Amino acid sequence: MKFLITGFEPFGGSTINPSEQVAKALEGQTIGGAQLITAILPVNGQYGPRTLLQIVQDEQPDGVLCLGEASGRPVLSIERIAVNLLDYRIPDNAGYQVVDEPVIPGGPAAYFTTIPVRKIAQELRESGIPAELSLSAGTYLCNQVLYCLLHFIETNHLAARAGFIHLPALPQQAAGRAAPQPSMSLECSLAGIRTAIGVMSGC
Amino acid sequence: MKFLITGFEPFGGSTINPSEQVAKALEGQTIGGAQLITAILPVNGQYGPRTLLQIVQDEQPDGVLCLGEASGRPVLSIERIAVNLLDYRIPDNAGYQVVDEPVIPGGPAAYFTTIPVRKIAQELRESGIPAELSLSAGTYLCNQVLYCLLHFIETNHLAARAGFIHLPALPQQAAGRAAPQPSMSLECSLAGIRTAIGVMSGC
Amino acid sequence: MKFLITGFEPFGGSTINPSEQVAKALEGQTIGGAQLITAILPVNGQYGPRTLLQIVQDEQPDGVLCLGEASGRPVLSIERIAVNLLDYRIPDNAGYQVVDEPVIPGGPAAYFTTIPVRKIAQELRESGIPAELSLSAGTYLCNQVLYCLLHFIETNHLAARAGFIHLPALPQQAAGRAAPQPSMSLECSLAGIRTAIGVMSGC
Amino acid sequence: MKFLITGFEPFGGSTINPSEQVAKALEGQTIGGAQLITAILPVNGQYGPRTLLQIVQDEQPDGVLCLGEASGRPVLSIERIAVNLLDYRIPDNAGYQVVDEPVIPGGPAAYFTTIPVRKIAQELRESGIPAELSLSAGTYLCNQVLYCLLHFIETNHLAARAGFIHLPALPQQAAGRAAPQPSMSLECSLAGIRTAIGVMSGC
Repeated sequence: MKFLITGFEPFGGSTINPSEQVAKALEGQTIGGAQLITAILPVNGQYGPRTLLQIVQDEQPDGVLCLGEASGRPVLSIERIAVNLLDYRIPDNAGYQVVDEPVIPGGPAAYFTTIPVRKIAQELRESGIPAELSLSAGTYLCNQVLYCLLHFIETNHLAARAGFIHLPALPQQAAGRAAPQPSMSLECSLAGIRTAIGVMSGC
Repeated sequence: MKFLITGFEPFGGSTINPSEQVAKALEGQTIGGAQLITAILPVNGQYGPRTLLQIVQDEQPDGVLCLGEASGRPVLSIERIAVNLLDYRIPDNAGYQVVDEPVIPGGPAAYFTTIPVRKIAQELRESGIPAELSLSAGTYLCNQVLYCLLHFIETNHLAARAGFIHLPALPQQAAGRAAPQPSMSLECSLAGIRTAIGVMSGC
Repeated sequence: MKFLITGFEPFGGSTINPSEQVAKALEGQTIGGAQLITAILPVNGQYGPRTLLQIVQDEQPDGVLCLGEASGRPVLSIERIAVNLLDYRIPDNAGYQVVDEPVIPGGPAAYFTTIPVRKIAQELRESGIPAELSLSAGTYLCNQVLYCLLHFIETNHLAARAGFIHLPALPQQAAGRAAPQPSMSLECSLAGIRTAIGVMSGC
Repeated sequence: MKFLITGFEPFGGSTINPSEQVAKALEGQTIGGAQLITAILPVNGQYGPRTLLQIVQDEQPDGVLCLGEASGRPVLSIERIAVNLLDYRIPDNAGYQVVDEPVIPGGPAAYFTTIPVRKIAQELRESGIPAELSLSAGTYLCNQVLYCLLHFIETNHLAARAGFIHLPALPQQAAGRAAPQPSMSLECSLAGIRTAIGVMSGC
């Protein structure tokens, strides 16, 4: 069993991204019988999804878990759905800002993620890691790569399960913000993602 | 140089308290030339302040830093002031709930804390630990022991500097709450309090 | 041109619902050439959607704007999407609580609303009425009736435009809550909905 | 019986201030036997307090209720205390920004307000107007004029009762902010302040 875990490069003026650090820490590891491969996606509307889909096609993983940063959210956010809508609040790292366009013209309005979101949330909480189910991955790169991934799996009739988990800012990121902002340590986020992968591998 | 660091026992239905864990982790250590002694205070309107003042009288510390838990706050809160007001939102651990009474009848309306609050906040942020200055320690035990401490130091003409820092909930506490709640790892809170003590010792 | 405006009956222990009051205030009025008919839907997973669809079938309105209460939200929330998911946080008024079931088995994951959401938000703000675009109508009755409505319009090839706006709690509701909660006066919510209907009628 | 009600002029880039509008609406009115006189204070660290104290000296009111704007707060905030600390987050309208200085050098750390805060909060809530008791009026002009007022009354042995209530932003102010922000209509804030004055006059 092979799982692909992805993070994003830093964006929005930050020099670090918790999703990049968590993904890199998992490279080459094995959890619950699943061998992990990882990738860091560019925060780029064109190359972010393309990079992800190329790896999925080449590696044919049994499961894909994408990670992203959600500054301001206080707990791990297990996303339930990706929507066919781009509405960038800030430009991507290539300087391109999209407002009210579909991710994929003609695609369905949304796809549900296919990982066991409720079971993951319960396992996380019972392990002492704060988590919630989320009904929106936003309308930026996180939602975009998730929508593209689920659309690719659907249209290519792949068996891979796919999902997305948003991570709070790292403490050192929150420390630099003018207003008080919640954070989660790398160790806590990493432990949570390990737990989530364990649940995914056992289904 | 001798510093007293205090935490509180668990309260409000929780079985743990980050301030207790941080204080215990510091017992017997030396930071920046300051030898640390620690105590865990009962969440009890009568014995909480009494326990603290007895230790201050016996040990004559050069500095006192009290710690407490502030569920819902996302960052370390460095308190600037203690007010002469008790208004318990929930009963203390003895089941006693006070509404709109003074901490000390006839005492002044408030005391400012005497640790370098702004310098501590700056050092914390530069160290990558989220922190804020706070204008209210509430009207529960945290504010009560801080007010009693500052009043005791003032009326006994002691030289000790004294302050209070509120800690966010631990991740395992936040994991048990129905609504998403910010948290901070024990390691991050502990690192922050070490930094604060270092600043106190260098003044 | 005929528009159907709906509100909900009170629920969750409250005796009033801003959406009911706004809908009733609009009964029989004409805005921007659109004649308004209104209905109050039961907070009942079975009869709420059924009541709405029966009226749409009978009246064949050119536009449908459903209103609901979203306690805790500080501004008018113009919903962009309805998802095929029921996950009631509290039971409906019949005492029935659904967890993780589809609104319509076999239906698409989601439908976008078909009113000009961005133009409505801009008009509202320029009129001095606080508003935001929202990416989630939740997983309770509000999302359920919206999903059923959009599915009915789609599968019956109707031309009607349809949308949903969430209203903050009324001041008298917020006044009764233990924690401070945002609210909006009936007059402000009503003025906002009039503006939204005006934009809908002009498209 | 004569009460002085004050508001502030606009500041911080806004062209309106709810406290100014509420104060002006009360000019010359009589509530519960109290004749109201009003004044609008400049958001100026030098002239704001001076203007207020001059009127108190000239008019010798039996009660003083100062009003101010607190953007971001969702309900009427009845202040309990003023602290001897200036820490302006933004410059005042004269462009002067103070950091960590006392309001009055040598003055006590704080004064409690002398209006019946709890009774006012209860009456407001029972009247359907959202309200809370607040432990901090901030460290800007609002706190500054309140501290100066209470200090003046204390040092001159006046009998006047004095307090402060913070008002949420007006809807048209919140409509212009980038992020969703709570607001309260002028009618609701005004009704609340009338109620508060009625309670003050009956004590």
